[in-house]
Amino acid sequence: MTTTQTSPSTSSADRLSGVVPPLLTPLTPEGEIDMASLERLIAHLLEGGVDGIFALGSSGEVAYSDDARRSQVLEAVTGFVAGQVPVIAGVIDMQTDRVIHHMRAAERFDLDGYVVTAPFYSITGPEEIDTHFRTIAAAADAPIWAYDIPVCVHTKLSPAHLLQLGTDGVITGVKDSSGDDVSFRRLAAMNRAAGSPLTLLTGHEVVVDGAYLSGADGSVPGLGNVDPAGYARMHRAAQAEDWALVRREQDRLAALFEIVFQPTDKVGPAAGIGAFKTALRELGVIATNNVTVPMSPIEGETVGRIRTILEQTGLLGGTDA
Amino acid sequence: MTTTQTSPSTSSADRLSGVVPPLLTPLTPEGEIDMASLERLIAHLLEGGVDGIFALGSSGEVAYSDDARRSQVLEAVTGFVAGQVPVIAGVIDMQTDRVIHHMRAAERFDLDGYVVTAPFYSITGPEEIDTHFRTIAAAADAPIWAYDIPVCVHTKLSPAHLLQLGTDGVITGVKDSSGDDVSFRRLAAMNRAAGSPLTLLTGHEVVVDGAYLSGADGSVPGLGNVDPAGYARMHRAAQAEDWALVRREQDRLAALFEIVFQPTDKVGPAAGIGAFKTALRELGVIATNNVTVPMSPIEGETVGRIRTILEQTGLLGGTDA
Amino acid sequence: MTTTQTSPSTSSADRLSGVVPPLLTPLTPEGEIDMASLERLIAHLLEGGVDGIFALGSSGEVAYSDDARRSQVLEAVTGFVAGQVPVIAGVIDMQTDRVIHHMRAAERFDLDGYVVTAPFYSITGPEEIDTHFRTIAAAADAPIWAYDIPVCVHTKLSPAHLLQLGTDGVITGVKDSSGDDVSFRRLAAMNRAAGSPLTLLTGHEVVVDGAYLSGADGSVPGLGNVDPAGYARMHRAAQAEDWALVRREQDRLAALFEIVFQPTDKVGPAAGIGAFKTALRELGVIATNNVTVPMSPIEGETVGRIRTILEQTGLLGGTDA
Amino acid sequence: MTTTQTSPSTSSADRLSGVVPPLLTPLTPEGEIDMASLERLIAHLLEGGVDGIFALGSSGEVAYSDDARRSQVLEAVTGFVAGQVPVIAGVIDMQTDRVIHHMRAAERFDLDGYVVTAPFYSITGPEEIDTHFRTIAAAADAPIWAYDIPVCVHTKLSPAHLLQLGTDGVITGVKDSSGDDVSFRRLAAMNRAAGSPLTLLTGHEVVVDGAYLSGADGSVPGLGNVDPAGYARMHRAAQAEDWALVRREQDRLAALFEIVFQPTDKVGPAAGIGAFKTALRELGVIATNNVTVPMSPIEGETVGRIRTILEQTGLLGGTDA
Repeated sequence: MTTTQTSPSTSSADRLSGVVPPLLTPLTPEGEIDMASLERLIAHLLEGGVDGIFALGSSGEVAYSDDARRSQVLEAVTGFVAGQVPVIAGVIDMQTDRVIHHMRAAERFDLDGYVVTAPFYSITGPEEIDTHFRTIAAAADAPIWAYDIPVCVHTKLSPAHLLQLGTDGVITGVKDSSGDDVSFRRLAAMNRAAGSPLTLLTGHEVVVDGAYLSGADGSVPGLGNVDPAGYARMHRAAQAEDWALVRREQDRLAALFEIVFQPTDKVGPAAGIGAFKTALRELGVIATNNVTVPMSPIEGETVGRIRTILEQTGLLGGTDA
Repeated sequence: MTTTQTSPSTSSADRLSGVVPPLLTPLTPEGEIDMASLERLIAHLLEGGVDGIFALGSSGEVAYSDDARRSQVLEAVTGFVAGQVPVIAGVIDMQTDRVIHHMRAAERFDLDGYVVTAPFYSITGPEEIDTHFRTIAAAADAPIWAYDIPVCVHTKLSPAHLLQLGTDGVITGVKDSSGDDVSFRRLAAMNRAAGSPLTLLTGHEVVVDGAYLSGADGSVPGLGNVDPAGYARMHRAAQAEDWALVRREQDRLAALFEIVFQPTDKVGPAAGIGAFKTALRELGVIATNNVTVPMSPIEGETVGRIRTILEQTGLLGGTDA
Repeated sequence: MTTTQTSPSTSSADRLSGVVPPLLTPLTPEGEIDMASLERLIAHLLEGGVDGIFALGSSGEVAYSDDARRSQVLEAVTGFVAGQVPVIAGVIDMQTDRVIHHMRAAERFDLDGYVVTAPFYSITGPEEIDTHFRTIAAAADAPIWAYDIPVCVHTKLSPAHLLQLGTDGVITGVKDSSGDDVSFRRLAAMNRAAGSPLTLLTGHEVVVDGAYLSGADGSVPGLGNVDPAGYARMHRAAQAEDWALVRREQDRLAALFEIVFQPTDKVGPAAGIGAFKTALRELGVIATNNVTVPMSPIEGETVGRIRTILEQTGLLGGTDA
Repeated sequence: MTTTQTSPSTSSADRLSGVVPPLLTPLTPEGEIDMASLERLIAHLLEGGVDGIFALGSSGEVAYSDDARRSQVLEAVTGFVAGQVPVIAGVIDMQTDRVIHHMRAAERFDLDGYVVTAPFYSITGPEEIDTHFRTIAAAADAPIWAYDIPVCVHTKLSPAHLLQLGTDGVITGVKDSSGDDVSFRRLAAMNRAAGSPLTLLTGHEVVVDGAYLSGADGSVPGLGNVDPAGYARMHRAAQAEDWALVRREQDRLAALFEIVFQPTDKVGPAAGIGAFKTALRELGVIATNNVTVPMSPIEGETVGRIRTILEQTGLLGGTDA
């Protein structure tokens, strides 16, 4: 692997950390972006106390969004957020040139960072993964976050490689959705030993407490769309090392996360994003629980079970049921 | 699954079958499409006797090509082929709307078919895969081929589902790159029993002979870029049921395929496409063996080993070495 | 890898090849070995014209059989076969010493070979797999067959490694149940180029015809328990290079193999072995279709569907239904 | 799934929890059990304050041990432990009857529990996994622990199934080596809601702190062979909810765990068990770092790197180096 220095990493004082939810993309019944709902959702997050917003992540249905919709999302999100918190955006595509294409299209929105996965679809080796990140970073006008998500891209980024990319200024941080907590702890320890060139955020919303003990700087919780205030409270408690409170919030949020297991006829985002959108509709934040083709929205008894969980975890008043 | 009839399948007499190589995309040293080499490569294939051309498949570096390059390829290929054989094109992307976006961009080239994979990146269930193909077919101006390639998309299309899609007129055929010959035989038997609604092409260039015995209507051999005449001879022999000749050609082509195992420092397309391009450069068909970032071209001793194999299999005169 | 010469390989004239079914283990309703049924099953195979018998393979429920039952099976099988054809036996266990333990227990039955998988349960690397086969071969009193079955052991044996083991006299042949026909063709070509140190048998009963074209010396078909004569006819046709007949038999046998897809509520051996045993019971060869705990036998409408397939493929007279 | 009640679960007061290391099996240079080293290792664990001992787990090289050695281990361990703490034993084998065979052989050692994995080698479905555990429990003279270890058996036990087995008295607890911390948190929450029928131990030695937050009752740390006192301190700190201390111990133990990444030429147990044994030899607890065939022991510079880590984490005085 080459070790081209691309840019100095941002000083840690300025760095984005804390709670950075992967923003959902609310849709109209016809499948268009529902701008009013998106504005309300962003307000819901900002009021909840989030530290940043991650647009066009997996939870933002980036894989289902053509280029036109991707630009619409970024224009709307940066407009509604209006600089109140940093906005980073997923530039998710198969290989290097396609990722750079998305970055070029996003440049006019003055984003605070881009989130990049390992190459996918075609099989790639370690050298190519390294070239991929370095080529993209060299072409970027904002810091790059590595998105470690083997369930989607079928490659695990190794802690040693991530640290090297951080030390070389190629990436500023990692969003870890690997599900590999052993690897995450190793990464956190290596990072600390190297002077913390990387900001480490976990994507696993039900075990953020353990990730804080391991050394996470924050989280990117899909469930944070539904209960941003809960994640913000947990983050402040972690910073204060009030672990009893961290654990209590995490246990409640884990109970809330059970909404994603209610649609027994769906898998993947159709269940997860579908449940988040259904909950937000029941909470009055967004107008529909519509999802993009080929997914179909959650219907029937599942909605009732999701409402019950919202009540049990204190988000919905029982009298509404 | 719904059973919407989208369009009557083409009558079998008109159908594309036989040898349909997945066309490579020759590049200049700077990484642009090398139009002169592309024209020579297409002439090489047509002279070899291929029955059709599949542009923007995995071997065409579709995953590495941004939208602009994809259009350039289709414009050039349809121009050079000029109707001499059918041209079908990969519209490869993650989910339904992104695939339709590529189809819309390709419509002006008057293609003879589109090749579509199962959805990837996001996890999808059987119902969504079905909706994916039906939605795309309903939006298409030419027949749809299902591209079964679990090594890239991490989902296997089941024989029963493919047959249902064929019976319903959603797809016209299957390019099978699944590596699952048991499943392929089942698909061929089911298809025959149902009156052959599907044309079945195998993508596994070293076992096309066995696929013919199973009932394949032809092949989509990446190696067919290098030796189209060999695959064409094998196809004619199979149609004549001259199995001794089929086997002899296949054994020679399998020996030729060893070129892809020579680059011991590369995996996936960097080895496979890299070897095909290196062979074609050595044969004088294309100008460089350049491949798209993040891949790097084959160099050094590997080139010599590829030349030796070309000589041993009769494609290069020994005196050239 | 070391290259210890352990023993000269048998001359090819003496070698076991052709049809070598993995013998089922018929059970009484109480789960004991049904000796009368086992004797009839062996007679059925010998009358069908098989070239050898493979006891205690996956189809023989070896994974479900404690040591006492394994010995009972070998004693009974060698007794009933009585030297009419060679008998080889699976000595299937997790790691080297456990395999050798089974070999020691089997020595008194004067077997014609032992069938050994890659190590499993614990993760092992290439060097350990090599040591495993060499250590077992050095301790063996009969030739060793490598059993390439990644679906069970989660490791694929590479063609180059298998050939090296053959050249070094460590193994005499390969039973390929890898499902990787590309790899099998490479192995066959490498083996031929090296003077055929290995005998190559395929375990995939529905694509034996293609395997013959690739260079297989025979098959180990689970379905051969049900229709040994069909596999014997196909083998003789392949030796005579009568490919039309090979294909016709294979197509009929592939249609027969559909019995394993009838039990929609079962997976793996509970479906496959269960279907073979059900078919043999319906054919009057064995007394029950019982299988070992934790599997449960096939019941209900599935039995009728299996009978229908037996009729359609000519094994059961239609008037029996 | 049936819901046969097999036995009442032990009252929680009597239950084994806390630190239960999976005992290594020290070997002589000739590969026999080194009884003197085993006695010293057990003394090391008891002095370290462990709450129980798990013999014949993956770390005990159970997969490599024939039946005779398994019995030798249990006889020696129960003798050396002499009732000071509970001893549970792995009865690891492929399918139900083979597991029961090991249980029968172990009965005379009056063990405090048996540890059972999902069936492996042969593919099994949910119903068979359920039957497997219920059949074994019905035949057992001591409580059954479910060992969730998909990396070895290639099946993940679902939280809902484990809880059902616990509620029905089939299993008393779970050793979770699944690497799936999201699933573990769900299991812990479900278990708590059901009145805690299960004792939950984590096998992931570097993230035990997070597992305690999730609700673990203890750990089964392979690394606990090397530093039992560290795990015992962490457990007491967790019980006292002194999370700062928990985290500090865990960070130190995670740094110690880096010994398993030092042998860059080995994978799986050859690296892990090999590193644990090498560390214990350097600490003077056991005599050799020998491992069972087909593994080979760690040699050369790797030993020095392991010593350095032992020094850095306070287990070896620097002057010894």
